[in-house]
Amino acid sequence: MMVNHAVDIAEKFSLFSEPWSPKVVATLNDYEIKLVRIKGEFVWHTHDDTDELFLVTDGTLTIQLRDGDVTLGPGQLFVVPRGVEHCPIADGEVQAMLIEPAGVRNTGSAGGARTAARDDSLLG
Amino acid sequence: MMVNHAVDIAEKFSLFSEPWSPKVVATLNDYEIKLVRIKGEFVWHTHDDTDELFLVTDGTLTIQLRDGDVTLGPGQLFVVPRGVEHCPIADGEVQAMLIEPAGVRNTGSAGGARTAARDDSLLG
Repeated sequence: MMVNHAVDIAEKFSLFSEPWSPKVVATLNDYEIKLVRIKGEFVWHTHDDTDELFLVTDGTLTIQLRDGDVTLGPGQLFVVPRGVEHCPIADGEVQAMLIEPAGVRNTGSAGGARTAARDDSLLG
Repeated sequence: MMVNHAVDIAEKFSLFSEPWSPKVVATLNDYEIKLVRIKGEFVWHTHDDTDELFLVTDGTLTIQLRDGDVTLGPGQLFVVPRGVEHCPIADGEVQAMLIEPAGVRNTGSAGGARTAARDDSLLG
């Protein structure tokens, strides 16, 4: 029998240290709840078919957008609308939760070296 | 032009005080991000067609399930699987974020007095 238990975000973050490597920690229908460490600048990219939610739990994240930046601290969230080009950047290190449908490529249409494979080693 | 800005969870909670009245603060595709104050016991209910995510931001929430309770503190989340009967309960007051598809009735198949209308007065 599955034992029901909470997902502790800080405890999950203690289990990995590499940036730009989102870890699936829960699923919600066909969506995935992922935790990611962000450090430095990502790549400009777009998800044509889906919105993407960022919720910061530690640090300060800037989501660069072509029409202005959004800055997020702990307890603040932003949904990047589908089709909107964006590029996350962090001066220090940021811990953030991402929510989007399963199967979305982290680098969107840009691809490249920072494209991450799905990692559900911390699921459950 | 829409100005891009973060949703500050604590600031949104400062704008309402009534329990059991979820407020939509953001949308993610056809899902809604809602904030809710929980105080006392809800009603046992089931969502047959969808999972439901609870993320606690303040206080301690117990999600009663027929096969065991799950207790959530700040920074902890739990996804109630579709079809699983559950009943949230809080000794003190809890602030929590809920994520589920738009149009889901808060009391599920149980209905009754605590059924809340959709409230997007804090959206954006």
